[in-house]
Amino acid sequence: MFYIGLDELLLSALKEDVGTGDITTLSCIPEESRSEAYFLAKEEGIICGIDIAARVFYLVDQRIALVPKMRDGDHVKTGDIIAEVVGPSRSILTGERTALNLMQHLSGIATATAKAVSAVSGTKAKICDTRKSTPGLRVLEKYAVRVGGGHNHRFNLSDGVLIKDNHIAAAGGIANAVKAAREAVPHVMKIEVETETLDEVRQALDAGSDIIMLDNMGIELMTDAVKLVGGKAITEASGNMGERDLSEVAKTGVDFISIGALTHSVKALDISMKFKK
Amino acid sequence: MFYIGLDELLLSALKEDVGTGDITTLSCIPEESRSEAYFLAKEEGIICGIDIAARVFYLVDQRIALVPKMRDGDHVKTGDIIAEVVGPSRSILTGERTALNLMQHLSGIATATAKAVSAVSGTKAKICDTRKSTPGLRVLEKYAVRVGGGHNHRFNLSDGVLIKDNHIAAAGGIANAVKAAREAVPHVMKIEVETETLDEVRQALDAGSDIIMLDNMGIELMTDAVKLVGGKAITEASGNMGERDLSEVAKTGVDFISIGALTHSVKALDISMKFKK
Amino acid sequence: MFYIGLDELLLSALKEDVGTGDITTLSCIPEESRSEAYFLAKEEGIICGIDIAARVFYLVDQRIALVPKMRDGDHVKTGDIIAEVVGPSRSILTGERTALNLMQHLSGIATATAKAVSAVSGTKAKICDTRKSTPGLRVLEKYAVRVGGGHNHRFNLSDGVLIKDNHIAAAGGIANAVKAAREAVPHVMKIEVETETLDEVRQALDAGSDIIMLDNMGIELMTDAVKLVGGKAITEASGNMGERDLSEVAKTGVDFISIGALTHSVKALDISMKFKK
Amino acid sequence: MFYIGLDELLLSALKEDVGTGDITTLSCIPEESRSEAYFLAKEEGIICGIDIAARVFYLVDQRIALVPKMRDGDHVKTGDIIAEVVGPSRSILTGERTALNLMQHLSGIATATAKAVSAVSGTKAKICDTRKSTPGLRVLEKYAVRVGGGHNHRFNLSDGVLIKDNHIAAAGGIANAVKAAREAVPHVMKIEVETETLDEVRQALDAGSDIIMLDNMGIELMTDAVKLVGGKAITEASGNMGERDLSEVAKTGVDFISIGALTHSVKALDISMKFKK
Amino acid sequence: MFYIGLDELLLSALKEDVGTGDITTLSCIPEESRSEAYFLAKEEGIICGIDIAARVFYLVDQRIALVPKMRDGDHVKTGDIIAEVVGPSRSILTGERTALNLMQHLSGIATATAKAVSAVSGTKAKICDTRKSTPGLRVLEKYAVRVGGGHNHRFNLSDGVLIKDNHIAAAGGIANAVKAAREAVPHVMKIEVETETLDEVRQALDAGSDIIMLDNMGIELMTDAVKLVGGKAITEASGNMGERDLSEVAKTGVDFISIGALTHSVKALDISMKFKK
Amino acid sequence: MFYIGLDELLLSALKEDVGTGDITTLSCIPEESRSEAYFLAKEEGIICGIDIAARVFYLVDQRIALVPKMRDGDHVKTGDIIAEVVGPSRSILTGERTALNLMQHLSGIATATAKAVSAVSGTKAKICDTRKSTPGLRVLEKYAVRVGGGHNHRFNLSDGVLIKDNHIAAAGGIANAVKAAREAVPHVMKIEVETETLDEVRQALDAGSDIIMLDNMGIELMTDAVKLVGGKAITEASGNMGERDLSEVAKTGVDFISIGALTHSVKALDISMKFKK
Repeated sequence: MFYIGLDELLLSALKEDVGTGDITTLSCIPEESRSEAYFLAKEEGIICGIDIAARVFYLVDQRIALVPKMRDGDHVKTGDIIAEVVGPSRSILTGERTALNLMQHLSGIATATAKAVSAVSGTKAKICDTRKSTPGLRVLEKYAVRVGGGHNHRFNLSDGVLIKDNHIAAAGGIANAVKAAREAVPHVMKIEVETETLDEVRQALDAGSDIIMLDNMGIELMTDAVKLVGGKAITEASGNMGERDLSEVAKTGVDFISIGALTHSVKALDISMKFKK
Repeated sequence: MFYIGLDELLLSALKEDVGTGDITTLSCIPEESRSEAYFLAKEEGIICGIDIAARVFYLVDQRIALVPKMRDGDHVKTGDIIAEVVGPSRSILTGERTALNLMQHLSGIATATAKAVSAVSGTKAKICDTRKSTPGLRVLEKYAVRVGGGHNHRFNLSDGVLIKDNHIAAAGGIANAVKAAREAVPHVMKIEVETETLDEVRQALDAGSDIIMLDNMGIELMTDAVKLVGGKAITEASGNMGERDLSEVAKTGVDFISIGALTHSVKALDISMKFKK
Repeated sequence: MFYIGLDELLLSALKEDVGTGDITTLSCIPEESRSEAYFLAKEEGIICGIDIAARVFYLVDQRIALVPKMRDGDHVKTGDIIAEVVGPSRSILTGERTALNLMQHLSGIATATAKAVSAVSGTKAKICDTRKSTPGLRVLEKYAVRVGGGHNHRFNLSDGVLIKDNHIAAAGGIANAVKAAREAVPHVMKIEVETETLDEVRQALDAGSDIIMLDNMGIELMTDAVKLVGGKAITEASGNMGERDLSEVAKTGVDFISIGALTHSVKALDISMKFKK
Repeated sequence: MFYIGLDELLLSALKEDVGTGDITTLSCIPEESRSEAYFLAKEEGIICGIDIAARVFYLVDQRIALVPKMRDGDHVKTGDIIAEVVGPSRSILTGERTALNLMQHLSGIATATAKAVSAVSGTKAKICDTRKSTPGLRVLEKYAVRVGGGHNHRFNLSDGVLIKDNHIAAAGGIANAVKAAREAVPHVMKIEVETETLDEVRQALDAGSDIIMLDNMGIELMTDAVKLVGGKAITEASGNMGERDLSEVAKTGVDFISIGALTHSVKALDISMKFKK
Repeated sequence: MFYIGLDELLLSALKEDVGTGDITTLSCIPEESRSEAYFLAKEEGIICGIDIAARVFYLVDQRIALVPKMRDGDHVKTGDIIAEVVGPSRSILTGERTALNLMQHLSGIATATAKAVSAVSGTKAKICDTRKSTPGLRVLEKYAVRVGGGHNHRFNLSDGVLIKDNHIAAAGGIANAVKAAREAVPHVMKIEVETETLDEVRQALDAGSDIIMLDNMGIELMTDAVKLVGGKAITEASGNMGERDLSEVAKTGVDFISIGALTHSVKALDISMKFKK
Repeated sequence: MFYIGLDELLLSALKEDVGTGDITTLSCIPEESRSEAYFLAKEEGIICGIDIAARVFYLVDQRIALVPKMRDGDHVKTGDIIAEVVGPSRSILTGERTALNLMQHLSGIATATAKAVSAVSGTKAKICDTRKSTPGLRVLEKYAVRVGGGHNHRFNLSDGVLIKDNHIAAAGGIANAVKAAREAVPHVMKIEVETETLDEVRQALDAGSDIIMLDNMGIELMTDAVKLVGGKAITEASGNMGERDLSEVAKTGVDFISIGALTHSVKALDISMKFKK
């Protein structure tokens, strides 16, 4: 999961954690000391970020080798060994926290996503993320969502169109807004419209929207909305989905359920690094 | 809560969220449109990040004015208005998500911290954070901990000494490790040692440690450890404190309780931005 | 036409042009000298980049005022005054070349685009750009295309899907490739497939492609292809369109004509800066 | 043609083109796929940028090998293979456009320069560039000019002195301006003065200018000017030289002809990347 | 002595020194030329920065090998060979000045520090540095102080507490200031208070300061102050120590002597690079 | 003395000095506190860097006003007030050290330069600097040299030609080297050749060098060299000039004396910031 810009992010995370040097390690551990360590799962979940952790150590010291014992997306249980790390002790200790912070965070997201995906299994609904992500980590967090079995919504304001109430009000109605967007944005983009009532759904449909977001609707209303759309557009359930009964939502027949909590309220997966004695 | 480097962080967060431009807004909303909007609390908690949100909007467009209705650290209830925003509609929409993502995240931390602080009220124990923070956001997250009534542990590996088992093993015992650190690190630093048994506590004490971390100890053992230390060093309870009964821990008499979950498992506070019609 | 990141680009352009200081100006022109100057069109075309030029001067010295006499998109003739600039002489001279280089380049693109748009007037074909742009300037160049009356194709590899022969070969046919992309990419994206024969057009259509690129086709073949598609997908003519008779291409009934030459072979519009005596 | 700062430029170009990832390629092409491809000349010209293209691929993925079949400065004909590329298919596709955009642009410059050089062959005149270059690419573009057989004028405002009318007016005449510059700028710099009349040429000569620019002069005037200078200074013809008969200009006896169009109005050389089946 | 951020510093130093390319070397020395060179001490002192120099060359060209003949901290005499460098001649010449500028500067600091350390030998006083360092080079300069046998004071305003007169005035006395700091700063920090009189020393002591700075005191006063402190806090002599008789200061019994001149008034050690013929 | 890139340098210096925040000041001084302070000369010299200091404070907090009481280049005596600073106390304290470190360093250079200039007064020799400057600070240091009355040699390897023994050896003699450089470098550059013997001076002269460096020559030899050159080239004395009798050197008739020590061995001028009570 490498991308242009990842190294910059990781170096900046390392700078933040290391400051001007790990003074404890430098004073207590001799330069020539070598260690073996391993990443240990301390709770059950979906692991994510092994390659990222490897890259963190690479950036600290190219002499560190990280040997994966699992792959991103694997289900881990308490006590599982995720990866082993061998190299200069000082460098391993210097990279440890940054590697862990990232892996725990991403695994937390993958685990929560997998749980959501599982809750809608047997339906056609797909779980997807939102732009409610942690500043600086969006590309990684969206990767974790995919690792957990979810799908990605747009990455930013320039690679997808989502027409909301303010846009509609300013453009003078849904039809005008859709038309304005269709005219102006690259033709490779679909047009999504946020709706809260059946009437808005109908307008969005008539306007030729490609995707219709059903925002904060109750189950009954959502069911009617999906029926109304009748496959002529993609439907997406949205609005505090992190606190809804996803199975119930999925049974309305929606195509996508987008969940902000996947990335805005992450519970880190418990992982620790242990040194072999 | 400004610091050298904050603008860089916020610009990079904006770039991540905006990409090459907010195509929906640019196509639907005229350049000359002006709006008034407000930040609304949708659940109870401690608000944090108002100035940060203001700075986000400033960086998007200096013509936006954010008028705070509350101050960081204030207790908000559902329905409270946190701040108002006035300016060019396009620019407000462009900054909205980044401002919200930051404010919700930081308020989530402040809220969780306040809860922990409250749990130990009546004891002398202070709640503090760890280095288990979100990569890129440490300075802001530690600010949120303070806003929530907590204290900060070290910010990075260079501004505090924490001697752990690997350091002890490499240095040949606690006494040697403390001596090595004392000799090498700036004299403005205290020396903290991680201990898991009474024997280790005793060694740390004899070695002249300034702070003794009581790691993963049960209540009884911790009580004995605090007694053993007898005020001759600062004591700090640590190890999955996010899942412990903090009141019980505090009653052992420890000086500090450090909680990784404050920053590694953040539940965003629900806040939204509404436009005045 | 401001975007997050523009200042960084302009500062870097200024650094490139100014080096460690404009030694000629510093030695010949006193610090207190003030000047008035104006941008003069020396050939006919579509002007683009006035705000960019203003921002360049702002970054050099906030005491410079640029007063636009025209707006981006205006048709200029030889001798027209585009904007006036007032401020410290040294700073105006320091920013002159960078402002001109950008405005001439962008105006060249807008002018060429307008020419292409005019060539297809009376047809439904829209002119659009490609990713064959000048490294570092893509957002500005795509803005210039819009200013010239054209449309934008995708901005980068992550905000649009374009399945080419290598993708098709690797995926095992057009149907498989479209299916794989549909499954994996955000649902806000359309799927475009590159075709060179009627058979490929048919496969792309059957696979449910949203956009079908007709690559390097002769007029007859293109006409048949458009007929075959029959409005069930968007069609886009491509392949050295900079050297084709655009009117003829447009008459085949294609929806879009994408032209790399708009941005890869730019003839700068002749503009100069004159000082008022 | 490596320089400190090149990697930064190329990474930024890649980021611009790749965004958060090549979603088409990632969805259609398996990670383990390997490919061989080659760069093919589709028109005649001077090739430039092979090492730059190699560096682009290196920055995308160090496992890609680019094997040059030609060297910068070589004359290519339609159908010539310029270089071969072997490595992971995904990475090759990710770097393709950035590598091509740069190589086509630089080859376009080298080709135009070679044409200009050829036009003045048999005279002593040398072709050189100006500061009218594409923002961000100056060092590369000036390299392309050299590859095409041209010479470089100054790279920026701090590494050369060029006294123009504003400097002269502010300093109170040519003599004063030259004196002021001679006094203030590093003694390693020559002093160049822009002139438009014989009288100005004479003043520049009397003032001890090292280089005299003959700006926008007709052939006759230029001939007289060169004669007047009589070898006591370097002469440089300038002013829309891209549209002049260079051979005629050269025959006036000038030492240099500086041509802005070499870099401000670049026609990309047609090159494409093909995959071996 | 590597730290996260060092490469960035060195690349920026190289860019500053190389500009857009070493034009003399590029024109005179063929690309394929290889050279052997060595760093030669031209005066006596303590060498520092060999690894830094090696990294400079690595960043210029990975084909250069620097073979150390000494280690940082070694005492060199005129004529000693410090390191040898082998590789492409052009690259060696390109990196030469930056490598030398850094090594000479850091060796100058190490040498001055060693002199100060030697002046206090036989006493318990330790020599330490201040924040009066060269902007941009602090981490390296503090490393050089350690190499010379000195100790480091705080690295910046966030990793140490130093209460000065303004803080005291604003807080309402020493006791209040110490209390305020103790309450607010991370508990891993000691509290240092600046004093100028015996009364202030007493107040600082009573307030529980960990470190007491004796600022600009004469020998007699300092002796009394040290006596008054009586080992209940660390003492640090400060104030133009670069011009004091350090042996005399040390004999007062202070624990630390901090000397700004170590880093603010550096005399470069004379080192040159010679090519083997 | 502003240049594109200065803010970047100052922000990076501030980050280095402030870290994540001035914890002493934040804990002791209330946010609303305002102060007046002034910069006080504590020894005699030439002041340099007042505008730079002002810019440092501006970058910390735009509410700080620095009012200059002197101008760069002024001669200060002990007790002189250089500038006053008014604004938020916290911000003043945060910027103090960075402003001082820069102003003391630059004033040290200006002072040493003025001393050298004065030593050669009455002769035609001009004092100039070298590339032996502090990494990161070259543009500022060369500004300080000018402020002290000196001249600048080249700023970097790309804005001046200096042919040394290695270049000569590789090119096959002085004549060849000069010819190669003349052919390849921009025609706005002069050619300087380093010589150590009369024979080399003669060769350099015959080769048409514009500047001849007389390196490490004794007074007698230098006198002969200057005579030999006879005004047909600029002469520059070089080589440990920081330790030579400059007046004696100047009397040989050389045009320039370049002194590395001006920037590589800087003694900071003693300046401090005082708060008004």
